[in-house]
Amino acid sequence: MKITEIHADLYHLPLSTPLSDATHGQIDRFELIIVRLRSDEGIEGIGYTYTPGTGGSAIHSMIVDDLAPIVVGADAGRPEELWNAMWWRVHFTGRGGVAAFAFAAIDIAAWDIQGKTLGQPLWRLLGGNDPIVEAYAGGIDLNFRLDDLLTQTSGFLDAGFKAIKMKVGRDNLREDIERVAAVREHVGKNFRIMVDANMRWSVDQAIRAARALYEYDLYWVEEPIIPEDINGHVQVIKEGRLPIATGENFHSIYEFKHIIAAGGVSFPEPDVATIGGITPWMKIAALAESYNLPITSHGVHDIHVQLLAAIPNASYLEVHGFDLNEFIKSPLEFVGGNALAPDNPGHGVEFDRKSLESYLV
Amino acid sequence: MKITEIHADLYHLPLSTPLSDATHGQIDRFELIIVRLRSDEGIEGIGYTYTPGTGGSAIHSMIVDDLAPIVVGADAGRPEELWNAMWWRVHFTGRGGVAAFAFAAIDIAAWDIQGKTLGQPLWRLLGGNDPIVEAYAGGIDLNFRLDDLLTQTSGFLDAGFKAIKMKVGRDNLREDIERVAAVREHVGKNFRIMVDANMRWSVDQAIRAARALYEYDLYWVEEPIIPEDINGHVQVIKEGRLPIATGENFHSIYEFKHIIAAGGVSFPEPDVATIGGITPWMKIAALAESYNLPITSHGVHDIHVQLLAAIPNASYLEVHGFDLNEFIKSPLEFVGGNALAPDNPGHGVEFDRKSLESYLV
Repeated sequence: MKITEIHADLYHLPLSTPLSDATHGQIDRFELIIVRLRSDEGIEGIGYTYTPGTGGSAIHSMIVDDLAPIVVGADAGRPEELWNAMWWRVHFTGRGGVAAFAFAAIDIAAWDIQGKTLGQPLWRLLGGNDPIVEAYAGGIDLNFRLDDLLTQTSGFLDAGFKAIKMKVGRDNLREDIERVAAVREHVGKNFRIMVDANMRWSVDQAIRAARALYEYDLYWVEEPIIPEDINGHVQVIKEGRLPIATGENFHSIYEFKHIIAAGGVSFPEPDVATIGGITPWMKIAALAESYNLPITSHGVHDIHVQLLAAIPNASYLEVHGFDLNEFIKSPLEFVGGNALAPDNPGHGVEFDRKSLESYLV
Repeated sequence: MKITEIHADLYHLPLSTPLSDATHGQIDRFELIIVRLRSDEGIEGIGYTYTPGTGGSAIHSMIVDDLAPIVVGADAGRPEELWNAMWWRVHFTGRGGVAAFAFAAIDIAAWDIQGKTLGQPLWRLLGGNDPIVEAYAGGIDLNFRLDDLLTQTSGFLDAGFKAIKMKVGRDNLREDIERVAAVREHVGKNFRIMVDANMRWSVDQAIRAARALYEYDLYWVEEPIIPEDINGHVQVIKEGRLPIATGENFHSIYEFKHIIAAGGVSFPEPDVATIGGITPWMKIAALAESYNLPITSHGVHDIHVQLLAAIPNASYLEVHGFDLNEFIKSPLEFVGGNALAPDNPGHGVEFDRKSLESYLV
């Protein structure tokens, strides 16, 4: 399975409805970076990563200028070896954002070749636990008017979801409480609600918010504070009395290890596209299992459904507000509100190149 | 001091003598990224960062595509505000390597404008402690033959240095011991020697090496293990009985805080070009001071001489094996083996653009 070719393309995808959260403000477009690898047996592997608007050209440059020379000639059947070669190739300028995203696109493509060559879906290849994965609808809706928020919620209910996530972190905590109360009222008691503060709060604010929101029976509070404040997470869990999900901003197994070992996270939430790919994602799942913690995913649901279906400690799949449905051939399937990992070889995502053409940078 | 223009250039600088260490293997070229900012008062600020061969084009892309739009129009007299705007602008793909390097080039240029506008050298503007800074010669010489290593050492002695650093981390610890013993023999007792393992060892290997090297009176062991293993650093210091210097691979104030608070570093060693610029470098110096720790620098000695001259807890300036002497107008000056912070306004580094021209990418 020697890799003989690599192609990387950067796309700017405008959003028909701008999204909003407490950190990124209004998001008008996403960047998508697609990597295609070809093996000497003629098999094409596809990998991708994304950004909420910045960093895409740097990721593309690193793939083309720094990583392509060692990817071509590597064995797609040895993703662990390739991953470590990439880590050390750009170590000095790596250890964080851009590099982890670049590795992710390549690593996902290598695993895709692996799966296609063996004729197996990744969820079986990586462990094979259960193809039916609990899913929630992830709203990116901080600045939606309340009636738009409830309309969106009704849409999620109609689509069969049994859990949703909404944004919090408005200027005034009172507004967050009113919005969460209204959504709880709208969906009823037998429905899970998660909230996501996108790092907006200080430790004190997070504790105050968690206590004020306690009565609305939230499943977790996501990213209450900045990812670097490990002790702060421990404090928020203890004093806020709500579980914490976090992980989209961690870019190595070590960052997860530090916060998991400290007791600062209840739902580790690695994002395969931001953590460096499937290779490190699976290690974080194993690390979490050894600490008796469930794993939830962030974004990129078409890949994550495979990974959560592989492991025994899967919690919810986030069905992300930014989806690729108009650009891929088989959007995610649902059965009774749960997502279903497809049985196609590899990860099963195929892009419709024609539909993407006009967004190529 | 509004910034009205930004230019960023990437250069590939081949090395006449290839350098080598335990992580990067043979280094044949460095990448240099120079940023020029112009203020509305017509003052030009210069900033730069570097890589040992990879990541340069990603850094350049991030500066041009993601940061330039917020740099133009910003106030060069408010580098703290600009720095935080950059941090959050690329936060999702940041928090590590490429982004920190990109911030550095811009932040250094903003501080340069600040100094030039006020007619002050940075070392005075940033605190003004002492312009005379102890310096050591940093060899990048792991794979040098022993006689070449000693010839290099003689050169450093002739140049007036009173301290040198050499690489360790060869395949066999016995070879490291022989080389350190030979250098100690060569320089005599009244001379400081540091060694740098570039993360080559496991915790156990580092402890064994530190103990075996103890009798050669080393000033510190640099990067004995990977930067992420905080507890490992604590263990190496305690059980190896030698001080540890580390920091070139940390890319945020938080990474320094974690290892300093844990007691895992004796000489915090931030690199202004890899930590994100002068703004975070000064905070790490203050953090270290509050823990009663001296600061040493990594690389980029033409800028670091200004920063170490500003602070009260300065340890050695590394005079790095990769220097820019053939490309700048006033190379670093020495007085009795110590470096002297120049009194020109700003940081005092001016590039000779003609000499760089042929290396432009």
